[in-house]
Amino acid sequence: MNFRIIAYIVGWVCNFQAMFMVLPCITALIYQEHEFFAFLISMIVCLIVGLPLTIRKPKNKVFYTKDGCVAVALSWFALCISGAVPFVLSGAIPHPIDAFFETVSGFTTTGSSILTDVEVLPHCILIWRSFTHWIGGMGVLVFLLSLLPLAGGYHMNLMKAESPGPSVSKLVPKVQQTAKILYTIYIGMTLFQIILLLIGRIPLFDTLCISFGTAGTGGFGIVNDSMGSYSTYCQVVTTIFMILFGVNFSAYYLLLTKKFVQAFKFEEVRYYFGIILAAILVIGLNTAHLFRNLGEAFQQAAFQVGSIITTTGFSSTDFSQWPSLSKTILVLLMFVGACAGSTGGGIKVSRILILCKAAKKEFQLYLHPNAVKKIKMDEKTIGHDIIRSTNIYLSVYLLILAASVLIISLDNFDLITNFTAVTATLNNIGPGLEIVGPMGNFSSFSYLSKCVLIFDMLAGRLEIFPLMLLFFKGTWKKF
Amino acid sequence: MNFRIIAYIVGWVCNFQAMFMVLPCITALIYQEHEFFAFLISMIVCLIVGLPLTIRKPKNKVFYTKDGCVAVALSWFALCISGAVPFVLSGAIPHPIDAFFETVSGFTTTGSSILTDVEVLPHCILIWRSFTHWIGGMGVLVFLLSLLPLAGGYHMNLMKAESPGPSVSKLVPKVQQTAKILYTIYIGMTLFQIILLLIGRIPLFDTLCISFGTAGTGGFGIVNDSMGSYSTYCQVVTTIFMILFGVNFSAYYLLLTKKFVQAFKFEEVRYYFGIILAAILVIGLNTAHLFRNLGEAFQQAAFQVGSIITTTGFSSTDFSQWPSLSKTILVLLMFVGACAGSTGGGIKVSRILILCKAAKKEFQLYLHPNAVKKIKMDEKTIGHDIIRSTNIYLSVYLLILAASVLIISLDNFDLITNFTAVTATLNNIGPGLEIVGPMGNFSSFSYLSKCVLIFDMLAGRLEIFPLMLLFFKGTWKKF
Repeated sequence: MNFRIIAYIVGWVCNFQAMFMVLPCITALIYQEHEFFAFLISMIVCLIVGLPLTIRKPKNKVFYTKDGCVAVALSWFALCISGAVPFVLSGAIPHPIDAFFETVSGFTTTGSSILTDVEVLPHCILIWRSFTHWIGGMGVLVFLLSLLPLAGGYHMNLMKAESPGPSVSKLVPKVQQTAKILYTIYIGMTLFQIILLLIGRIPLFDTLCISFGTAGTGGFGIVNDSMGSYSTYCQVVTTIFMILFGVNFSAYYLLLTKKFVQAFKFEEVRYYFGIILAAILVIGLNTAHLFRNLGEAFQQAAFQVGSIITTTGFSSTDFSQWPSLSKTILVLLMFVGACAGSTGGGIKVSRILILCKAAKKEFQLYLHPNAVKKIKMDEKTIGHDIIRSTNIYLSVYLLILAASVLIISLDNFDLITNFTAVTATLNNIGPGLEIVGPMGNFSSFSYLSKCVLIFDMLAGRLEIFPLMLLFFKGTWKKF
Repeated sequence: MNFRIIAYIVGWVCNFQAMFMVLPCITALIYQEHEFFAFLISMIVCLIVGLPLTIRKPKNKVFYTKDGCVAVALSWFALCISGAVPFVLSGAIPHPIDAFFETVSGFTTTGSSILTDVEVLPHCILIWRSFTHWIGGMGVLVFLLSLLPLAGGYHMNLMKAESPGPSVSKLVPKVQQTAKILYTIYIGMTLFQIILLLIGRIPLFDTLCISFGTAGTGGFGIVNDSMGSYSTYCQVVTTIFMILFGVNFSAYYLLLTKKFVQAFKFEEVRYYFGIILAAILVIGLNTAHLFRNLGEAFQQAAFQVGSIITTTGFSSTDFSQWPSLSKTILVLLMFVGACAGSTGGGIKVSRILILCKAAKKEFQLYLHPNAVKKIKMDEKTIGHDIIRSTNIYLSVYLLILAASVLIISLDNFDLITNFTAVTATLNNIGPGLEIVGPMGNFSSFSYLSKCVLIFDMLAGRLEIFPLMLLFFKGTWKKF
């Protein structure tokens, strides 16, 4: 284990965290909120930790997959712990575990909240909550890679550990360049949404918070009914951008480089849109009787489907009241999730595609035992190791799901609350059903349950392996 | 596809079905019930179909895995359709789909019932319901193999397709001999339970029905409260035998051949008992306040744990009222299931072991990317194809689960009812929660939902692949 480089990376994450906090500081100054000092102190703490670790560049460049995973996991812990400090210092969320829960929920773009009333919070706290979504969405280490002139073999291992999906695709040969392109697309799309919302006369502050939440597919609201009280225009814009941020960013790069045919043949993206359209159609028809007209039903269906499949978790209506079929579709979409290489969570469309293709191949093996068939995606053969690790991902995912539901059942809530609370955090969605439904929150869980859900959110965002490695004895051997 | 042999096998299944119906016929004669004629007619129908198909032994012995799967799937259809005839003819269950549901539930040892009141049924119908459990438990094709002097390569392919678990273990080199040994153990243990229940002064008729239900890990009750009204002695005996019938029968063979060390080292069986003990301990303590004393709590916990993990589905108390932790454990046990090579259903302990071991290996690969490690069970290396098919099994299992829940949600029941109805049928358990809970039944579902659940029960019993192959176009090509 190359502890020196890991410390160097974690140090940089702390430095960046200080930089990120400039935004809430400015907000506090504009609105003249005394929480300014909470952020100022937090920034200083971040720099005190970060600067000494980053003064000297480490010489030993040996950096394995394992080191990449540990660096990413520890960076995320550093990010979430330092991000929680302003909540505690300002008194907005006094208890450290609650503050940690809220911050993890922010950075992992989950959007589950322990707050019962967000409208009483100062502006700087609200924008910080939403901004954590934006940072976590594309990933802090991707951000770091795009700016830092790191050398050696550790670029790819960091990117691999932080990026969602069964495999990471380098857009261009150089990792730093890939990271830069990703962040350019990310910033461009966010700005575009901000402009569209401003055109719709949404106040700037609300616009920023909504756009950060949409871009990161996070879902923290700044009013208690999430998105319910915003105009239809605002909801439609948000629907479109939620869905766009759930698309594999490689598709955008293909579009930017004018490889239109390849972009439109992108299998994962096509299935992603196919699932969305089918779900909207069925839910729209199924809930038509609950709305004034079919148009409104489809608009609300589109908003919920977009919000759930991209794991954003904004809500515009209480879908707990919808018919069983619509609710079941939404619960299933919670597991499907968005595309790999997007800011969304869940199992990911590409993983599900790989699993289905592997299953189909198995059936064909029954018919032609000696046939040699490869599993292909986008006309490229998928490596055996990706299929294996996708399978293992599914098993471990289910084990974590089962274990989490078991532990939080100690709180003695109903089964649906427990099951959907874990589903909503492990898939980084936000709201579940019943007590943790769109109009509820996570405040009533015990601290033990909150810790389990924190683990689930991180496991969901980092896709299990990097986080789990921390708990393996062998990881910490120096060998 | 060798249609000739498949027809021959299906024909024999029909003949055996006629033979099996001798038991309800005798029962009807003893109790002087006019349903006798329903069974007599059914027997004649079975023989009219069966005898012509079995007059001549097929000459073409070519028989692939595919043919084995199709033969098993079609045999089970023949078994369930012919088994439903007496229900319809006697008027006990007038609607054909209801009767088919009840029969599939019987043969697949599920024990889900569409009957709202079983106490009004005549004795011959009750014993036929329970007897179907016993036949389906060890498998009708295993039975056929143990008696018929079949030759050629199709022994193993039939056994493989019908026996539960990731791989089938031949106890002795000859398949027919293996089948004989399995049935000898099965009959011996059933007789032992019958004797123990008779000693406890349970009436012979009840004893037979309970023993058939226990041996097949089925769970049809002959009184409306399942096992609640029977004596503690009867419940304890049933608990012990439920658990024993969920053990991999290979372990019994090892005991019979005095290979005690190997028997006690049997990994799957050790984990199976470990899970059972842990679950009883936690549930006993968790529900202690609901009973008069700790002893009763543990006795009821043991009964429910045994009933659920072996997927029998008898109930002695309404566990819907238990605390969330206990309920969650029971729901998780529904998925775990019994051992491979037993009469129980579910995913099977050995599959879960294989998945866990594969996951552990994957983590070790992160630490030592070049290490070559094999996955072992009982000190034997597990073949790559078994790991792959176990993984695929899990994916397809989840897909069927999701699709089934989606379709039956059209009935607009609550999510827990839908989810546990599918769980209970796909894992061949019987009761779920809420409307389909231990004190409820499946009568209120639409016929569409019932068809979905019938598919799930068959998919659960035949472990998906044989059944699914019927729906592949390639299966029916002659090539």
